[in-house]
Amino acid sequence: MGHPRQPVRRRGRPPLHQRGAGPCGEGPSPGGSRGGHRPRFDSVSDEFDLIATIVDALGDATAGESVVLGPGDDAAVLRLPPAHELVVSTDTLVEGQHFPAGAAPELVGYRALAVSVSDLAAMGAEPVAAVVSLTAERLTERWARAFARGMAEAARAFQTPIVGGNLARGDANICVAVHGSVPQGDSLTRTEASAGDDLYVTGQIGGAGLALRSGLLKAQSISDVEPGSAQGRYWLPQPRLAIGQRLRGVASATIDVSDGLASDVVHICEASGVGCDIDLGDVPVFPGSDPAAAVCAGDDYELAFTASPTHATAIRAIAGETDTPIHRIGSMDDGPGARWRQGGKPISLAGGFRHF
Amino acid sequence: MGHPRQPVRRRGRPPLHQRGAGPCGEGPSPGGSRGGHRPRFDSVSDEFDLIATIVDALGDATAGESVVLGPGDDAAVLRLPPAHELVVSTDTLVEGQHFPAGAAPELVGYRALAVSVSDLAAMGAEPVAAVVSLTAERLTERWARAFARGMAEAARAFQTPIVGGNLARGDANICVAVHGSVPQGDSLTRTEASAGDDLYVTGQIGGAGLALRSGLLKAQSISDVEPGSAQGRYWLPQPRLAIGQRLRGVASATIDVSDGLASDVVHICEASGVGCDIDLGDVPVFPGSDPAAAVCAGDDYELAFTASPTHATAIRAIAGETDTPIHRIGSMDDGPGARWRQGGKPISLAGGFRHF
Repeated sequence: MGHPRQPVRRRGRPPLHQRGAGPCGEGPSPGGSRGGHRPRFDSVSDEFDLIATIVDALGDATAGESVVLGPGDDAAVLRLPPAHELVVSTDTLVEGQHFPAGAAPELVGYRALAVSVSDLAAMGAEPVAAVVSLTAERLTERWARAFARGMAEAARAFQTPIVGGNLARGDANICVAVHGSVPQGDSLTRTEASAGDDLYVTGQIGGAGLALRSGLLKAQSISDVEPGSAQGRYWLPQPRLAIGQRLRGVASATIDVSDGLASDVVHICEASGVGCDIDLGDVPVFPGSDPAAAVCAGDDYELAFTASPTHATAIRAIAGETDTPIHRIGSMDDGPGARWRQGGKPISLAGGFRHF
Repeated sequence: MGHPRQPVRRRGRPPLHQRGAGPCGEGPSPGGSRGGHRPRFDSVSDEFDLIATIVDALGDATAGESVVLGPGDDAAVLRLPPAHELVVSTDTLVEGQHFPAGAAPELVGYRALAVSVSDLAAMGAEPVAAVVSLTAERLTERWARAFARGMAEAARAFQTPIVGGNLARGDANICVAVHGSVPQGDSLTRTEASAGDDLYVTGQIGGAGLALRSGLLKAQSISDVEPGSAQGRYWLPQPRLAIGQRLRGVASATIDVSDGLASDVVHICEASGVGCDIDLGDVPVFPGSDPAAAVCAGDDYELAFTASPTHATAIRAIAGETDTPIHRIGSMDDGPGARWRQGGKPISLAGGFRHF
């Protein structure tokens, strides 16, 4: 990175994305519930207050060395390092679907950004910025402030400024688009695994799933959550940015383990046109989690990747430099598909999962 | 633009964003309705079918000269022209709020991309690509295909390939993040209007609002909609990309008229710290629309902009080159606020709007 200038051009109040302001009063609503591209919060001033609240709570998390223009205009303006490509991903969290209804907004905000940044890690990218579209039916100032505080904490942790967004009224839905940069041609994908490559996974698997199954997601703030606990694995995922960046030129295929290791390995196999052979006993499992449940559970945001055996030493060095365990859990072959074993015997995870 | 290589690296089937695939079967759902980062369509294979349907229907609308890697990986990879900055904006459409419930999916898809691209036009940017997060409770293959067809039509019209996305289950919600490029330092903002500048608007105002108020949004496909009709103004907005790009170095402040001209002029005033004086009689109004209703209605996606009187000739030339009317509707001053007149007499739009 390292850009010469960074003017955040602002004169007036910097709303995330102003809508519905103006001198027209409430008036007859154009189209009633049938349409009309304006939000229907309790009043227009409510919406302005909420936008101001969110931008205030984000604080310095809207600025960064790549940010030429942050929140408050029709769009944000960002600068990429020279000879780099842009990496873009979008993710949506729906209340009651991707996080428990009524969950603490600070934790929802942190997690919403972290899970999207994890996609940048899987591409070997450095974060540049994010935009956030927040839809909620009844968005109080208190909820909005706590949500923004949590998101700002993640923005600082992962150096991913929040440069714009949108507010809308509807069922709770948080849509985050993240932007990163990679040196031209160096992005990691799912498509280049080869037969003979080793298969690795970072960290431990199953902590987030254990927290979900055990109903351990009741913390009310970031400071309530022990980062290394099962709940911490769910609410405060730590995208493997440093490892992803070091895997450029080392890994042949990389994916973030968001759907569950078992599913994500299939994605690599399908995208690369190879198969793999994995022993459940080699998977590093979060303490207290059943291995078969762990590899099916998802929400862990570790990286799974493949690499030629010639890179085994480099991968050990990366584990050492990043102080993160990286385990070899299997090998790629000509297929078909992903075959699981336990103690050498073939197993079916679907069956295993039901029986355990 | 004009990049040397454009490999769209793919081997397997290219899903928008795979989730929930794998060998774990349905099993006990982790967390039930309380969480779990996986969608709950009728079955996992339903979701894969839907993703494949959407990518198929997008066809060549996923590729473009800036697209290094399109849908199907953890993230897309894009290339920007050298010495350009990235422009990013996000917008959300909620069913029943931003478009009529039960509306034709082809039209919803077209409009969802068009309204976001309009933010690029207002920054003076050239489109690069978009990512789309689609949330729906009951997403049929037929709806998904028609939605993608409409979005692909807009993607081709505005040269904005759809390079990635996400599917989730929940209340219908379409979140689009658009990406554009501007030569370094040349983006148009809302903040640089000065007292003495003229205020202009492109095209005509009020057509979309008229369609909304008249319940004229019942078309079932793009081919059913007359582009110049009130309904066409709502469903098939044409972002003013060519004008926005030509306004670089000419306009002092620019905004897209999405909230209604009256509101959006206030945004320029507040962001630039100036006021303005506008005569309602100078506003070019869509035939059949009441002027006071038109300037409050929104959804038009024209551009409002300010410029020094020294640029009057250049602006006439831009109108000629782009074959688009551009009307001077007022002038900027030291304020306070935006003051409306009709036939020289001060009026209150709020009052006027209620009475007409």
